[in-house]
Amino acid sequence: MVKVGIVGSTGYAGGELVRILARHKEADIIWYGSRSYIDQKYARVYRNMFQIVDASCMDDNMEELASQVDVIFTATPQGLCSSLINEEILSRVKIIDLSADYRIKDVKTYEEWYKIEHKSPEFIKEAVYGLCEINREDVKKARLVANPGCYPTCSTLSIYPLVKEGIIDANTIIIDAKSGTSGAGRGAKVDNLFCEVNENIKAYGVTTHRHTPEIEEQLSYAACEDVNIIFTPHLVPMNRGILITAYASLKREVSYEEVKEIYDKYYNDEVFVRVLEKDLTPETKWVEGSNYVDVNFKIDTRTKRIVMMGAMDNLVKGAAGQAVQNMNLMFGLDEGMGLELIPMFP
Amino acid sequence: MVKVGIVGSTGYAGGELVRILARHKEADIIWYGSRSYIDQKYARVYRNMFQIVDASCMDDNMEELASQVDVIFTATPQGLCSSLINEEILSRVKIIDLSADYRIKDVKTYEEWYKIEHKSPEFIKEAVYGLCEINREDVKKARLVANPGCYPTCSTLSIYPLVKEGIIDANTIIIDAKSGTSGAGRGAKVDNLFCEVNENIKAYGVTTHRHTPEIEEQLSYAACEDVNIIFTPHLVPMNRGILITAYASLKREVSYEEVKEIYDKYYNDEVFVRVLEKDLTPETKWVEGSNYVDVNFKIDTRTKRIVMMGAMDNLVKGAAGQAVQNMNLMFGLDEGMGLELIPMFP
Amino acid sequence: MVKVGIVGSTGYAGGELVRILARHKEADIIWYGSRSYIDQKYARVYRNMFQIVDASCMDDNMEELASQVDVIFTATPQGLCSSLINEEILSRVKIIDLSADYRIKDVKTYEEWYKIEHKSPEFIKEAVYGLCEINREDVKKARLVANPGCYPTCSTLSIYPLVKEGIIDANTIIIDAKSGTSGAGRGAKVDNLFCEVNENIKAYGVTTHRHTPEIEEQLSYAACEDVNIIFTPHLVPMNRGILITAYASLKREVSYEEVKEIYDKYYNDEVFVRVLEKDLTPETKWVEGSNYVDVNFKIDTRTKRIVMMGAMDNLVKGAAGQAVQNMNLMFGLDEGMGLELIPMFP
Amino acid sequence: MVKVGIVGSTGYAGGELVRILARHKEADIIWYGSRSYIDQKYARVYRNMFQIVDASCMDDNMEELASQVDVIFTATPQGLCSSLINEEILSRVKIIDLSADYRIKDVKTYEEWYKIEHKSPEFIKEAVYGLCEINREDVKKARLVANPGCYPTCSTLSIYPLVKEGIIDANTIIIDAKSGTSGAGRGAKVDNLFCEVNENIKAYGVTTHRHTPEIEEQLSYAACEDVNIIFTPHLVPMNRGILITAYASLKREVSYEEVKEIYDKYYNDEVFVRVLEKDLTPETKWVEGSNYVDVNFKIDTRTKRIVMMGAMDNLVKGAAGQAVQNMNLMFGLDEGMGLELIPMFP
Repeated sequence: MVKVGIVGSTGYAGGELVRILARHKEADIIWYGSRSYIDQKYARVYRNMFQIVDASCMDDNMEELASQVDVIFTATPQGLCSSLINEEILSRVKIIDLSADYRIKDVKTYEEWYKIEHKSPEFIKEAVYGLCEINREDVKKARLVANPGCYPTCSTLSIYPLVKEGIIDANTIIIDAKSGTSGAGRGAKVDNLFCEVNENIKAYGVTTHRHTPEIEEQLSYAACEDVNIIFTPHLVPMNRGILITAYASLKREVSYEEVKEIYDKYYNDEVFVRVLEKDLTPETKWVEGSNYVDVNFKIDTRTKRIVMMGAMDNLVKGAAGQAVQNMNLMFGLDEGMGLELIPMFP
Repeated sequence: MVKVGIVGSTGYAGGELVRILARHKEADIIWYGSRSYIDQKYARVYRNMFQIVDASCMDDNMEELASQVDVIFTATPQGLCSSLINEEILSRVKIIDLSADYRIKDVKTYEEWYKIEHKSPEFIKEAVYGLCEINREDVKKARLVANPGCYPTCSTLSIYPLVKEGIIDANTIIIDAKSGTSGAGRGAKVDNLFCEVNENIKAYGVTTHRHTPEIEEQLSYAACEDVNIIFTPHLVPMNRGILITAYASLKREVSYEEVKEIYDKYYNDEVFVRVLEKDLTPETKWVEGSNYVDVNFKIDTRTKRIVMMGAMDNLVKGAAGQAVQNMNLMFGLDEGMGLELIPMFP
Repeated sequence: MVKVGIVGSTGYAGGELVRILARHKEADIIWYGSRSYIDQKYARVYRNMFQIVDASCMDDNMEELASQVDVIFTATPQGLCSSLINEEILSRVKIIDLSADYRIKDVKTYEEWYKIEHKSPEFIKEAVYGLCEINREDVKKARLVANPGCYPTCSTLSIYPLVKEGIIDANTIIIDAKSGTSGAGRGAKVDNLFCEVNENIKAYGVTTHRHTPEIEEQLSYAACEDVNIIFTPHLVPMNRGILITAYASLKREVSYEEVKEIYDKYYNDEVFVRVLEKDLTPETKWVEGSNYVDVNFKIDTRTKRIVMMGAMDNLVKGAAGQAVQNMNLMFGLDEGMGLELIPMFP
Repeated sequence: MVKVGIVGSTGYAGGELVRILARHKEADIIWYGSRSYIDQKYARVYRNMFQIVDASCMDDNMEELASQVDVIFTATPQGLCSSLINEEILSRVKIIDLSADYRIKDVKTYEEWYKIEHKSPEFIKEAVYGLCEINREDVKKARLVANPGCYPTCSTLSIYPLVKEGIIDANTIIIDAKSGTSGAGRGAKVDNLFCEVNENIKAYGVTTHRHTPEIEEQLSYAACEDVNIIFTPHLVPMNRGILITAYASLKREVSYEEVKEIYDKYYNDEVFVRVLEKDLTPETKWVEGSNYVDVNFKIDTRTKRIVMMGAMDNLVKGAAGQAVQNMNLMFGLDEGMGLELIPMFP
């Protein structure tokens, strides 16, 4: 039984970790960290857990946590995990960080886009970028996993095979992303009030969103060259779900079958990536509540471009689900354990 | 392994049966009935099931079905199950009917409120009303279970203890119910279009809704007298969830503790009914996707009345979940098997 | 031209006042009060007003305001208007208070339900309850109008005629109300975040909501006796709209025609109250953005009760629209001026 | 007074024409055409119009209509207007066609993308493309106006100035569009049911949407060369609103100020196009219910591209509002008459 501690268990991603782990056969949450709700019953904060979780929230003491658990999930804002971590802790416990602190290998890039100083850059090199489908073997051996961002997960999985296989010109990639509002977190802000989000759609962080360098880094590895993209996220009036619609120029003429074969090559053995049948477009509703990413593509012969699409639940594969998938790999468990979640429709 | 056939597997309740049964350890769906989609891949109709269900839809042949499965779920409009059933079929297979055909014991009442002739009234007496928390022992022995309506399930469970214990005057009960739109089914009607439902709330079927006599019958058993109530459903712009707010006159002065004790007496041993803590009101979001009913109450000393509240997912405890709960009971399985669904939030 | 000052112009009700008054032929807003946004362009806070309103927000100085405008709207939380007002101000300017400060004639009742001390009870008697359809003549002469609450407006207009005509037993009235989320205001609270409200419905303030005594007072006048009711509001995942479903026992047998005639007697000459045709139920969508209240009823002969229903836009007839209707009356303008708003559908 | 007939008055665009024209000082609707609802009271179909419109629906007899009205709006599916029109009718009445029949100058392109035969290609040349901001003078003299599509209106107005001024390479344009569901019409289809759209987002018509050639034609005029673009629409769970996010490569380095100046040059004198202040992104909520298009842009120096954004109400500026704007021009009225609609927030 893997003993689990969650730092930041009362944010939306933290709540989703609890939902998933509460039914995980080989994991046991023993620490519900939450600075905002210390000593309050967890099930008073997340009332879905009433009569399921009896514990109360505790503070974020990483030292103490390290002595009690086998793995710590940090579902906290940028900068927290990197300020709490040290060699002593890492030697005793595995860490899966859901923040961006260890995702970007170049500390300058991190500091530039996140506008904060990195507090423990010495661990960046060791950290494994936990996109399981791509870095599976490294994750298995990792002490410290940087759980990928929601947009980067959906974007990378949708685009990666075509960059890797040299089908598209990576520097022409434009990613137009749409996210449900849980991605904005549970903080009390006017911008995220029901009446401000409902019946509305808008772009935000245009050309400046912090997931941009994270996506670029992953695509650069695939392209074996530096890649610059445009990434534009939008806020959609729904709770969950990310849809990405990505565009790129084809390097040469390709057929539907050829491209389909590439996607199949990368994903046929993957449980959580579903390559849709021809002409079906991914929809967030069909993956809601599950760890699936649905991907597909459409070739536009008129403009010699290709449209790549992906849909995913931002809180599951985009956060908590992928974190559990990483935990499973790190502890030698079946990769899909606890993630047998069927999408809920409607 | 219980072999399952579903008649009407492509409606919303049918889809939910598939979602639940696909992860049920002791059940195996071998017949996906759907008149509208015969020979089409089930996973093309419900794309959440892509790479999970490989079968195609079949017609509604009950005779053939009876020879292949152990239990048939009929998730079809009123009148269908009662027109297909016969002694031959019932002798070979158990039936759980999600329609209203066998819920009401008085055939005249059924025909009056449903405006159709009952095709097999001879089975009404035998049928067991499948509200597990109340009729558990009868369900275990049943060949034919009438799975309760969504509103009656939530209403009865919220009100029943106080009627049974004689705390409230049953003939003063007023039930004001609110339902998500999946309760209206997957038929293509202008009234259920997104733009007609979104940003709107309305009452419908005022004083005439067909769930009224079903609720009255159950409350009459508890009251040991004929009960007449007002039941008013409303359509709410959300996919899932039923909330009922019920009002009744208190027969005598009661304290919070006294009433709480009554609810606890009825529900402390029930897995799927959660009596909330004082002053918390049930919310549909906290039970979404699960088989829970959350109930609570508030005494109004000023008017000598009590407000009883219940929240539930109309497609789970209000339809498919309760049907599986009934199946479990009928086949001697653990009552909650396959229903370990944690509410999804947000 | 009526010169207008708005205190609290950046809340939702304040924003709606601006939307309506910006197209009012005889009114001119010259003071956009907003403590939170002093010196910021109003059109940066309410970007719908971009290129329509050029002014910046100002503080809430009532003294200065009184010397510059003919009427002040106070769209602020309880307690603010009553703490700022004095005889000097009232002698120079008319005041329409959208808060509850002057709605309830009995100061003890106010203090009990609102849990605050009233700062200027000396003006309560003078204040006119601005439900135009009922108090039209008094409003015309008023210096200080207490603009009714959203729930009380919809409830009273739906129920009033039947109480006044002695058709129903007023002490049996139960009001089950449903409101869009703009009624909760623009404050940054976790409870009002998109993800908490969306796909959810809940009751709140059960038996304790502060609009209860306001409704009771108005119905008491009609009944010529003290009236106690139950009032239960619910939060609905939509921006605008209030629906009330009210229940009461009939004092005697009545026909549809008889009751219809009563509603017609009270409302046939009213521009903003629409008595619907038989069997149509009010829906919030059909009044959205307008000053209409749609009402109708259904007799339940089985239980000798009647169901009364009303739908309204909480920000228009429930707040800003009614406030402008009051202003029109106070300044001898056409009562509907600036309120020729057609409901927006869908 | 302009006498108006509407063919297709009970679709969403038709309903919006009625909402706008009912308050237009110089227009009078005298024919509410609707095949589906002949002889039914219009206000029973669109209950927002109760006590505002008393007329009943009539059939679609263009000949008779032409003898009674000054202008006919055809808010009907593709192919209908072109099959009903003839020289006799056009000689007696002006026509504003909200369908696509006369938008595309090349009949082959029309037939290819719309998969129907054009029934009256002889009028295509005469028809004026009614994008008022661009073709104002031609509209004034037109007998037949092709009212632009919703996506093309928002796309063209957002992009046009930069193509016209040669700032961007028109053949690199990618338009990622998002629309509320009213754009899908009021037909009873499973795909548009509340439960299918709510909590969901998807792309549709990828590389094949029929508004593509319409946008390309308009941009080709601006570019003085043939332009091919990618256009991808998405369905968003909201009633109204279109947001477009468009991407293109810059032909040369430009500053914010330079680009802002270009937008200002084209739109400073336009009432209905609002160029937002720096760093503000258009949001559909800020224009809802109004005839405004809000546009803005962001330069991405890293990739040498520019992001152009536009937000609009698809039923107003994208359909009925623009049609009325065209009518005003055609009849020598003030261009904005009847369109003084302030966006409704929230």
